[in-house]
Amino acid sequence: MSKEITSRSQDYSQWYNDLVIKGGLADYSAVRGCMVIKPYGFALWENMQAILDRKFKDTGHENAYFPLFIPKSFLSKEAAHVEGFAKECAVVTHYRLKNDPNGGGLIVDPEAKLEEELIVRPTSETIIWNTYKTWIQSYRDLPLLINQWVNVVRWEMRTRLFLRTAEFLWQEGHTAHATEQEAVAEARQMLEIYADFVENYMALPVVKGTKTASERFAGAVDTYCIEALMQDGKALQAGTSHFLGQNFAKAFEVQFLSKENKLDFVWATSWGVSTRMIGALVMAHSDDSGLVMPPRIAPLQVVIVPIYKGDDQKLAIDEKVHGLVKELKASGISVKYDDSDNNRPGWKFAEYELKGVPVRVAIGARDLQNGVAEVARRDTKEKVSLPLEGLASRIGELLEEIQQNLFDRAKSYQQTHITLVDDFDTFQKVLDEQGGFVSAHWDGTPETEEKIKEITKATIRCIPLNNPPEAGICVLTGKPSKERVLFARAY
Amino acid sequence: MSKEITSRSQDYSQWYNDLVIKGGLADYSAVRGCMVIKPYGFALWENMQAILDRKFKDTGHENAYFPLFIPKSFLSKEAAHVEGFAKECAVVTHYRLKNDPNGGGLIVDPEAKLEEELIVRPTSETIIWNTYKTWIQSYRDLPLLINQWVNVVRWEMRTRLFLRTAEFLWQEGHTAHATEQEAVAEARQMLEIYADFVENYMALPVVKGTKTASERFAGAVDTYCIEALMQDGKALQAGTSHFLGQNFAKAFEVQFLSKENKLDFVWATSWGVSTRMIGALVMAHSDDSGLVMPPRIAPLQVVIVPIYKGDDQKLAIDEKVHGLVKELKASGISVKYDDSDNNRPGWKFAEYELKGVPVRVAIGARDLQNGVAEVARRDTKEKVSLPLEGLASRIGELLEEIQQNLFDRAKSYQQTHITLVDDFDTFQKVLDEQGGFVSAHWDGTPETEEKIKEITKATIRCIPLNNPPEAGICVLTGKPSKERVLFARAY
Repeated sequence: MSKEITSRSQDYSQWYNDLVIKGGLADYSAVRGCMVIKPYGFALWENMQAILDRKFKDTGHENAYFPLFIPKSFLSKEAAHVEGFAKECAVVTHYRLKNDPNGGGLIVDPEAKLEEELIVRPTSETIIWNTYKTWIQSYRDLPLLINQWVNVVRWEMRTRLFLRTAEFLWQEGHTAHATEQEAVAEARQMLEIYADFVENYMALPVVKGTKTASERFAGAVDTYCIEALMQDGKALQAGTSHFLGQNFAKAFEVQFLSKENKLDFVWATSWGVSTRMIGALVMAHSDDSGLVMPPRIAPLQVVIVPIYKGDDQKLAIDEKVHGLVKELKASGISVKYDDSDNNRPGWKFAEYELKGVPVRVAIGARDLQNGVAEVARRDTKEKVSLPLEGLASRIGELLEEIQQNLFDRAKSYQQTHITLVDDFDTFQKVLDEQGGFVSAHWDGTPETEEKIKEITKATIRCIPLNNPPEAGICVLTGKPSKERVLFARAY
Repeated sequence: MSKEITSRSQDYSQWYNDLVIKGGLADYSAVRGCMVIKPYGFALWENMQAILDRKFKDTGHENAYFPLFIPKSFLSKEAAHVEGFAKECAVVTHYRLKNDPNGGGLIVDPEAKLEEELIVRPTSETIIWNTYKTWIQSYRDLPLLINQWVNVVRWEMRTRLFLRTAEFLWQEGHTAHATEQEAVAEARQMLEIYADFVENYMALPVVKGTKTASERFAGAVDTYCIEALMQDGKALQAGTSHFLGQNFAKAFEVQFLSKENKLDFVWATSWGVSTRMIGALVMAHSDDSGLVMPPRIAPLQVVIVPIYKGDDQKLAIDEKVHGLVKELKASGISVKYDDSDNNRPGWKFAEYELKGVPVRVAIGARDLQNGVAEVARRDTKEKVSLPLEGLASRIGELLEEIQQNLFDRAKSYQQTHITLVDDFDTFQKVLDEQGGFVSAHWDGTPETEEKIKEITKATIRCIPLNNPPEAGICVLTGKPSKERVLFARAY
């Protein structure tokens, strides 16, 4: 099975597709740019959702649901917003099909044309702020802290499973506040929640920062982001949190009466992470044998495979394993005893390796006699023989060790892939030969940013939070600069 | 607050809308026929989802996600299916907007017309079976037991919040089996799961049955359903489970190699429940003061309101309440201590009554001295003074009593609203004066069924499962009949 996976060195992009499809995470669909998320991939998404949803609720947010469709006119109300989304949206123009009277089969009924076209939501600021208008009158109605878990559609021309698809799943938080300060604090709080999640559950270190004006969300005053590095040295934006100022409140006329009895526009944030995170997870940790799932987020943490000849051996192993399974489950560890006789142990080993199950336990008849089991960890592929006595608690520790090791490995990669560069030749060389983040001075103009992008395909991923001030000169133009920013080629 | 609710006797339909909107469950949106599900309504939906999802997983189903869009040609592949859905679907025809060169603002870009129109899924049999074709080769790939929780769109002309909306949320299970017997067993198993959920969590008794040919799901061989009665005597279909035979396998050419090495078409089921259930919940249990939530599904089970003058009294009450809250939470009971000083206790009482919180506890300074609290149950509005000692466990019992009482009340209503009728005059009279189910003989033809519907607006809700055979004559035509069926006017 693992032989069918293209190696990273051979074709990184194909390696990624092989993992996603053969690992059972997703599949292509008959609809251009839309994917099918398969049960194993969806279980991963459910784990991500459960952890994040708990964090959102613990910080006072509630879930709700707003319509899939956005009237075309709504999109136009915020100038920057429409500019960002109009070019890639699915437009509903009719509400009925009929049989072609000329025998051409099923056709769109021209008499069922909508008066105003509807856009399939690419993001929901407009429909939500149009609703908030009726919900917010006074400071007593604030803050309004709402999130929704939904599908969105952006008509991307070049798509990649999970990383860039026409339809994807995400959560979008939309909050309303009485003061600028409170809204900024909310946007930064959510960034911290995302960073904590990606680092401590996905085992993926991130750089937290703000976007430059040209990379900002369409309609935001400030976009906070977390940026992670993939194994090929490219960066991937794993989540964003936007301080929207009063832009949407003004566009949709959402005002509130303050404690001081003054009418003011409401301050807003929005923030989101999507199924794109699954792509990041795959690219960050996996190897040429398959997926590598961080234990805290793995759909399945432990698999147990029996190795036996005949029913007697099988029964003896079963008895021991049932106890182990019970103990593991009692500790909240997900475990599967794969005693199906459809496939041989070797096939199963390869299959669970491909799927990235963190710990594999194999028990044979001789192991049983010796009171041991063979335990293999997916991250390092090390195999050790461990006593059955106390095995469940040892596996619990091992899962935490694997989690930590994956993070450390990715952290070490990240740390060796942030290169300080002071001239443009080196800038290009580092991007070409080593990849990763290039920390360089930039003159602060969108023109220079654009020129660097044209020449190198690298964009400014972020201006790190708490970036130390440092006088310097722009790597391209030689003009003065006050701080370094992080460039990278990115997904 | 409760005064603003229209009474049932005055205008049942307005009463329902008042409850949904003023109770904070949902709101109208700017998009025709689409609703906003507000946080309180969504919390109810989340509770429903969590319980059902657990039941689905316990019976071996896995969640996945299939595309929102369905190519127009897919819809045509199953003849009955397209007939059922083509007339009410949202059609995506373009993938880009642009600025009108003639200054007419944002317009659909005529150059971004799709080659094939995409339908926003009204249900997903077609896109899923087109995918199953690539997933199923042999009996080893079966059964395939998949569910998805998604939004769907049916362009209904007359909409009602929750009951009939252009967009709604639901789950749709789609399973594939090697034998007819296994598929039928699956469809019936899911019906039992729905019935168990609606009766034991929503406290709403149902009649289980099968639909007649003309009421069947478009593309099904058999549609199983659960039917509940609302307080106005109308029936509401709360869930359906379909045995699809080999219809979709044939339409999408999904064949498998059996154990006997023979090629055969796969057998299918699909089954779903939706946010419509929230409408059923509201209509079944609520009263003229507001919503009444069954405890097992209530977003909030217990609210505690302090009644005090001055900080000293408040502090003493706080101390006692914090202990009570802790105890309740430890028993898995959701509780809110509403000590906000924005509103007076009377306002809070009305608010939580409107929202249907099952148990309200009020504690004043004198109560504290006497070691008691006033406990009000929402279902009967009874108030009793109960000792603080042991209150948490008493509340736990009370919640179960309320759950049971709501079910018993609805069951008693149901039992007194199934009327055996043998002539058409009485048939009409019962429908007009009493409502509920009318159990009558029918000659088994779609023509008679249609005629009865035209005359009385009543449809055959179902042929109950395990219906006793009984010779009789059709209530309309006088032709022979072998069993009674249940008629009702319905939502």
